[in-house]
Amino acid sequence: MFTYSFESKETKSLYLQLYAFIKADILGGRLQAGARLPSKRAAAKNLGVSVITVENAYAALQSEGYVYSLPKKGYYVSEIAALFPAAAKPLPAVQEAPRETDPAYRYSFAANGIIPENFPFSIWARLMRETLNTARAEVSAAPPSGGLTILKEAICAHVKQFRGMEVTPAQVIIGAGTEYLYSLIIQLLGGEKTYAVPNPGYAKLARIYESVGVKCAYVSEDAQGMDIASLAHSGAHIAHVSPAHHFPSGTVMSISRRHELLNWAAQSEERYIIEDDYDSEFRLSGRPLPALQSLDSAGKVIYVNTFTKSLSPTIRISYMVLPRALTGRFYERLGFYSSTVSSFEQYTLAQFIRRGYFEKHINRMRNYYRKIRNCLLEAIQSSALAALARVSEEEAGLHFLLHLRTDAADADLKQQAALAGTEIRFLSEYYRHTSPAIPAHILVVNYSTLRMEDIPAAVKALEKVICESNSNLAELN
Amino acid sequence: MFTYSFESKETKSLYLQLYAFIKADILGGRLQAGARLPSKRAAAKNLGVSVITVENAYAALQSEGYVYSLPKKGYYVSEIAALFPAAAKPLPAVQEAPRETDPAYRYSFAANGIIPENFPFSIWARLMRETLNTARAEVSAAPPSGGLTILKEAICAHVKQFRGMEVTPAQVIIGAGTEYLYSLIIQLLGGEKTYAVPNPGYAKLARIYESVGVKCAYVSEDAQGMDIASLAHSGAHIAHVSPAHHFPSGTVMSISRRHELLNWAAQSEERYIIEDDYDSEFRLSGRPLPALQSLDSAGKVIYVNTFTKSLSPTIRISYMVLPRALTGRFYERLGFYSSTVSSFEQYTLAQFIRRGYFEKHINRMRNYYRKIRNCLLEAIQSSALAALARVSEEEAGLHFLLHLRTDAADADLKQQAALAGTEIRFLSEYYRHTSPAIPAHILVVNYSTLRMEDIPAAVKALEKVICESNSNLAELN
Repeated sequence: MFTYSFESKETKSLYLQLYAFIKADILGGRLQAGARLPSKRAAAKNLGVSVITVENAYAALQSEGYVYSLPKKGYYVSEIAALFPAAAKPLPAVQEAPRETDPAYRYSFAANGIIPENFPFSIWARLMRETLNTARAEVSAAPPSGGLTILKEAICAHVKQFRGMEVTPAQVIIGAGTEYLYSLIIQLLGGEKTYAVPNPGYAKLARIYESVGVKCAYVSEDAQGMDIASLAHSGAHIAHVSPAHHFPSGTVMSISRRHELLNWAAQSEERYIIEDDYDSEFRLSGRPLPALQSLDSAGKVIYVNTFTKSLSPTIRISYMVLPRALTGRFYERLGFYSSTVSSFEQYTLAQFIRRGYFEKHINRMRNYYRKIRNCLLEAIQSSALAALARVSEEEAGLHFLLHLRTDAADADLKQQAALAGTEIRFLSEYYRHTSPAIPAHILVVNYSTLRMEDIPAAVKALEKVICESNSNLAELN
Repeated sequence: MFTYSFESKETKSLYLQLYAFIKADILGGRLQAGARLPSKRAAAKNLGVSVITVENAYAALQSEGYVYSLPKKGYYVSEIAALFPAAAKPLPAVQEAPRETDPAYRYSFAANGIIPENFPFSIWARLMRETLNTARAEVSAAPPSGGLTILKEAICAHVKQFRGMEVTPAQVIIGAGTEYLYSLIIQLLGGEKTYAVPNPGYAKLARIYESVGVKCAYVSEDAQGMDIASLAHSGAHIAHVSPAHHFPSGTVMSISRRHELLNWAAQSEERYIIEDDYDSEFRLSGRPLPALQSLDSAGKVIYVNTFTKSLSPTIRISYMVLPRALTGRFYERLGFYSSTVSSFEQYTLAQFIRRGYFEKHINRMRNYYRKIRNCLLEAIQSSALAALARVSEEEAGLHFLLHLRTDAADADLKQQAALAGTEIRFLSEYYRHTSPAIPAHILVVNYSTLRMEDIPAAVKALEKVICESNSNLAELN
């Protein structure tokens, strides 16, 4: 029988005290596995507490598995003592999350971001408030798997006007970032397929494919876009391209190459094209090219775009547009997934697009980037770099190439620049190590996060690095 | 030489008109591949427009690939005519997105959701407004890969207080829903591993694993939790369990089984446990059980939980807590992924937790669900079901089991109920078809979306179905 002495029940309820006493006896081995606990009535009488108190303590012990009950027999101690792990080892170290940006750089010609002030924050905040006040029912419910219809409709209208695409809301799938959408595409088209990524290209892309265990083929690019002979030769089933503006080479895929690519896809049922249209909004001069998707009569193009790049990094909303014939497969196989974007943010974005704020923002940003680019180009032209560098691919979106006349190695220049507090990146860094001919001395100049007021000093820093590293400067001049 | 006649340039700029004329000639085959365009100067003179106009038109044609230029030679028509696809086929049908809920049911004992009104919408809205006003810089930037530190810290404090877990912010990873986090876990632990899911269990779980192409083992459950002998026999490397409250059986994993499971995991470096703690907040009586994670001294438990179930379906924020030793592997291999939740929602949720609103909400909801459950149990007890049904597993979270005395088949009862506008689901539906012994006549009664005022009518409807389908009613009584 139990012999426990209770503290005042003001401190801790009697049943919890009893629970703790018995638990300690079980863990300490004083109550052995298989032992029968006293009946509730007997224990209550013995301890001078109510039956309810004992009942509650036994129930708590049972719910945690320390005791079990047999119908009409009573409570027994569980077999647990032997199972406790050996003495705790010292805890392994926790690796901290890495910092997003390297604060050591004063200027960056490499960052691929957005300056937060350019986001129309007060309009967005107003629409959020409005959504909270007027659309409570809509935003309290779980969004359907593919996204809110109101946002899908707004996106249909947008891509019709700006990208020449005729699509219906059911073809549009909303997701929390393009990276997430790629994982859906892989599930839709098959993880056993080979995915062609451009070389040179955005390293993260191949990393995503490889992280989920699908095979990547690296396909070379020429001046018109992805090389179709290499693509065909690679054995890839799916080609991942950015026809509007290839990163980092800046190539706009030619009309003829677009048709060659569509023809390649049409040759086999398994083939598809992922059109990653990530910065098509920011073509700075000339007419915007229609999307590859709008030329696709065979249902082979999956179009992907994001608001994270065109609006703000705080908005984690991307979308894809499926070929009509794939919508059935999508909802059947993947329609069980919950949407990854809250109804609230989907609804706010829908209002932002419907009321024309998105279009206005894009126009404003295009002007802004044009100014930054022109100012940067002028600063380069009026520096010593003018004699040592040639600019190309400066028309479509947020970066251009700077071909340097130098005999220094790219890695050395990069290091010199870093020492001078300036981040630069070369085209050669976007090639696979194994590529046969990697072009040297071509800078990929990304000006999306460069501030107007920093341009003179940033160009000065770059000029100094390039001139000083160049031992044959006099000769080149 | 060109012979085009322009409209007034008020209607459309001259260069766009010229662009359209030449493009139409190329597409119509009147200008053949390889043909040289007139020089800009000659064309300008001939057409009576400025050289700039011709320059702009040629540049637009070139950027779209209709023409190409050879240095010092001029512009030539591209090889494109042959590439245009054959006459368009009729468009394939678009399958519409399925509806989320079946509106045909008047009452549901099966829905696994939340009643939107229970979400403290006005507090949430106030915190959102405050965030917009005061944390503009924080929410305009891209969140770090694993999530905002302020939210990770709030989660650490929460799981310490409520689940007995001692963890640091770097171990916490934020993601847009548990389904997304599972995909990260698979990438972290390996897609070639076998993942054990409980049988019976939540069908979606196996569907997610199978959709991303990993092998699932179905492991049976007994009254204490996942069966360890079956688990060992299955060859699985990773066990996916919900120790706090298994769905649908309602089992709380016993302390001894928890230790057996931890011992199983400790036996091989490849083994891990995913602790899916999805509704641990809603234990309705007794003391909450500490998380399995808090017993884990070997670094084998990945803890997963979501705010979508505990707060509102509109909040797509989930988190996982990695063992200390896995944090390095996570940031190295998967730290390149962008966060899937906007800084804005992460920041708002952090405030909601820090200021105690989350705790208050959980307490309020626990009381609310207790009332609903008690009212539902009373309604059952005072109906004809009392003689035909026994309740079990009513303590932990949002559903209980109703063991029916009946000779009707589960499928027939389900159909009868559906005809009467009532959705019910049997435990047997959560078993794999191939399971050896599937228990019949056990209803999984989920009351999370049942409204207080609907309970009498809903129970009446259920009573009618069960009584009428039971041909031996008199005999059983």
